[in-house]
Amino acid sequence: MAIPIELDHGSRQSLQGQIFEQLRHLILGGKLKPGTLVPASRVLAEQLGISRNTVLLVYDRLIAEGYLQARKAIGTYVNLELPETCLAATRRIVTSAPTSGEPVKRPAIPFIGHIQTKKAAAHLDFDFYPDRIDLDLFPHKVWRRFINRIFTSTSTHFTECCDAGGLPQLREVIADHLGIARGISVSSDQIIITAGSQEGLNLAARLLVKDGTLVATENPCYRGAASLFESYYAKLVPIPVDEKGLDVEQLPRDGVTLLYVTPSHQYPLGFTLPIERRLKLLDWARRCGAYIIEDDYDSDFRYRGSPLTALMGLDDDGCVMYLGTFSKSMGAGLRLGYLVVPKALVPAARSAKWLLNNGHAWLDQATMAEFIRSGAYGNHLRRMRNMYSKRHDCLIEALREHFGAVQLSGLESGLHLAWHLPKSYPDATELQALALNHGVGVYPIGSGTTYNVGKSEYSARTLVLGFSSLNEYQIRAGIRRIADAFINLPADSRLSAIDGHSRVPPYVHHRHQRY
Amino acid sequence: MAIPIELDHGSRQSLQGQIFEQLRHLILGGKLKPGTLVPASRVLAEQLGISRNTVLLVYDRLIAEGYLQARKAIGTYVNLELPETCLAATRRIVTSAPTSGEPVKRPAIPFIGHIQTKKAAAHLDFDFYPDRIDLDLFPHKVWRRFINRIFTSTSTHFTECCDAGGLPQLREVIADHLGIARGISVSSDQIIITAGSQEGLNLAARLLVKDGTLVATENPCYRGAASLFESYYAKLVPIPVDEKGLDVEQLPRDGVTLLYVTPSHQYPLGFTLPIERRLKLLDWARRCGAYIIEDDYDSDFRYRGSPLTALMGLDDDGCVMYLGTFSKSMGAGLRLGYLVVPKALVPAARSAKWLLNNGHAWLDQATMAEFIRSGAYGNHLRRMRNMYSKRHDCLIEALREHFGAVQLSGLESGLHLAWHLPKSYPDATELQALALNHGVGVYPIGSGTTYNVGKSEYSARTLVLGFSSLNEYQIRAGIRRIADAFINLPADSRLSAIDGHSRVPPYVHHRHQRY
Repeated sequence: MAIPIELDHGSRQSLQGQIFEQLRHLILGGKLKPGTLVPASRVLAEQLGISRNTVLLVYDRLIAEGYLQARKAIGTYVNLELPETCLAATRRIVTSAPTSGEPVKRPAIPFIGHIQTKKAAAHLDFDFYPDRIDLDLFPHKVWRRFINRIFTSTSTHFTECCDAGGLPQLREVIADHLGIARGISVSSDQIIITAGSQEGLNLAARLLVKDGTLVATENPCYRGAASLFESYYAKLVPIPVDEKGLDVEQLPRDGVTLLYVTPSHQYPLGFTLPIERRLKLLDWARRCGAYIIEDDYDSDFRYRGSPLTALMGLDDDGCVMYLGTFSKSMGAGLRLGYLVVPKALVPAARSAKWLLNNGHAWLDQATMAEFIRSGAYGNHLRRMRNMYSKRHDCLIEALREHFGAVQLSGLESGLHLAWHLPKSYPDATELQALALNHGVGVYPIGSGTTYNVGKSEYSARTLVLGFSSLNEYQIRAGIRRIADAFINLPADSRLSAIDGHSRVPPYVHHRHQRY
Repeated sequence: MAIPIELDHGSRQSLQGQIFEQLRHLILGGKLKPGTLVPASRVLAEQLGISRNTVLLVYDRLIAEGYLQARKAIGTYVNLELPETCLAATRRIVTSAPTSGEPVKRPAIPFIGHIQTKKAAAHLDFDFYPDRIDLDLFPHKVWRRFINRIFTSTSTHFTECCDAGGLPQLREVIADHLGIARGISVSSDQIIITAGSQEGLNLAARLLVKDGTLVATENPCYRGAASLFESYYAKLVPIPVDEKGLDVEQLPRDGVTLLYVTPSHQYPLGFTLPIERRLKLLDWARRCGAYIIEDDYDSDFRYRGSPLTALMGLDDDGCVMYLGTFSKSMGAGLRLGYLVVPKALVPAARSAKWLLNNGHAWLDQATMAEFIRSGAYGNHLRRMRNMYSKRHDCLIEALREHFGAVQLSGLESGLHLAWHLPKSYPDATELQALALNHGVGVYPIGSGTTYNVGKSEYSARTLVLGFSSLNEYQIRAGIRRIADAFINLPADSRLSAIDGHSRVPPYVHHRHQRY
């Protein structure tokens, strides 16, 4: 029996692989039925004009996988144990015929998370998207030198997972840093190294959030946090924000398991929670037995006064978890951050991290530890702070130059600020659309990385402007571009906010809708 | 008023930091009450014998943080807005007195995961712990060369998260590899890069498992998987394993959402699921609408015949998710793996990964992609396969030399094998204890990385022996050591399995108990 096999000698796939696949498909497709003898290896080799050894290797593999069986004195034949029903069920692999019989009844998957749309920045000349940083600001040379130093000077640990909580020496330098820079006194055991603060949030959510858990958040807040809690079936409880940050008086008296808060630089409005509210917040958590996640995403960059003592530094009831990240100071592509947990939660948090991914990659941790320990991180931070301080001032100056006495918030620190538009201006989505049409990206609250948990007085008339990925020239040019477009609007359009958003191109709503 | 501040000029903390902390504690401790004037900066500087500028900086920071307020003509005083109750609540920071009043009522955290105990290998001379590999086998020089090449030859991406699903070029070379090596035809979109296969399991669990979801697993199985599903409140359904792997006939007819299976090399017993069972399994999944996770943890190392076609390569109903890892071929400290999902699950899996940690670190992905693309990975795999093949044969030889016609399973591939003890031997935990007393680690089913989901016929009389972290000399010496100890046992102890495990030191049970 000649078997219909065709070889492509120009193919990337080996001859052996091609013969194997074709025989397999002939068997699964029912062309070679159970019990059918296949040609002797010598015969098939001759038929195909190849070495007998190749055919023998293919037969061996087909025997190993159970497609063929071999018996002395009989020969090699298609396995009798291949049940007919299975052949029928998989025949479609070969024939590509539509699924026969009843379709697969597969239940809807219970997962309810949605990805944050990646903004399409390619067509924008100047993009004030928050939370991005310049590639040029990453300390490439120094980082590379440190990696090479790690390879030569210490023993490597590529072949075993390190401690689920993270590399001990990295946790130690972070503990030191937190003590000095943030007034938090913790032992290194309490620190879990994570792939960015998003993974830290995930660990915290894994520990505390179940179906129906009440999680309070600032409103507006960081989208990545809100979406995460919702994906664990939490119920979000929005707490309003005013010019002193979270309005502590409006927290529910009980029922809330977890509060997510950004005391240093409210995300996205930039307000700083003053000491009296911090103390009240801790008192509230104590009374209602809630935990607090303090997301301290950008307090390394403070332009006025000294850094504030973190909420965790004031807590002595063990209710605060502190979220830190190197995404702003170094770069988000490094995926390095940490979660600091109260002592009582250490075993659970370590377990959650172990179950999540067995701990963090070794080399990045070792490099970061040495980078901090050597003082290079401190130098880098100072250089970045200086650079961002200039960009920060430049943005404020440009806004004042073109738009007069602008009302801004979040100026003390961080990598973005919020611009509160006067009543006489188009509203935030209209201004966004106008800017977009002129190649500039600005972001109303509720778009991009920001999220309105409930109604917020800021959603209609506030724009978020990130300045960390643009240089001073770009910042000035971007703001000038918006100003020019704005001034050239007909006078009635400048007030179109009143008559129903008529100027907003529909795609703006789609690209930035909430999800 | 002289303020009780003491400076330690030898301290690592700056003078400014010391004064700040002490003043803050005095205020929070109620020693300096709201409204109290603090000394003029000049006065405090004189009192402490330091520069006035230092005091001014401290006062500025305390004002910025809301501890102090300053008014012209009045001076600087403790903030009146610090509510008395808050002061009381935080006084314990300073006094370290026991918590006064009602204790914090904090609900039990709902998280139910437990960490896998890290085995203490330090005191063992020869440790046959599975899933470990030699540090010396990591290709340090080549890897370092590739990292340096990445730094110089391509643009770097340290400052932005890459695609949540992973670096496109890495996913492409993995898709190619899967097609050639495992018979899986997927587009690179279906691949999600993860921190090891544990994170891939986590993504799959996030998509499909809720409170009470029925998850079927082989029994015995991999502990990391079972513990993970349980931490998501799944109900595990144990399915027996025989010498052909998972006993497909014993799967429940419906109700199961997810099946976790290791068809290439059953974990931990090493059996290979033959083609007829694979086809029946797919038929079962189709009929009851279940998904299957195929964990293909070590099929790169096959010593007899060609690699088997993966279950996912046979699936045309989109029910199989495939879990791959570089932990065995490269090293677990790299934390690199991937989950391949059916097309219909791509958007949800990407979202889950984004919510988890925004995607994987850039440099490791870029290096791995180039390592594979260049052919260096193929060379490395061949070198490792050759090395492990020798260790594998050496272990079998040593067992036969000392224990005669041993009954082994899992010999076709992988980095461990299972030794089924004859009835005349002590049982598995006794032999483990005996070996441990002589500095050798061997592992009964249910200890270490293996898990008995329910009763298993293998739990009492099977030992798992990993050979990938020991060289041939160590393998021979380790087995000889066990044999010597075994032979020197008094004859009645060799049969002590019958009279109640009397020789098992209690700590063995503790160190290897199930959790």
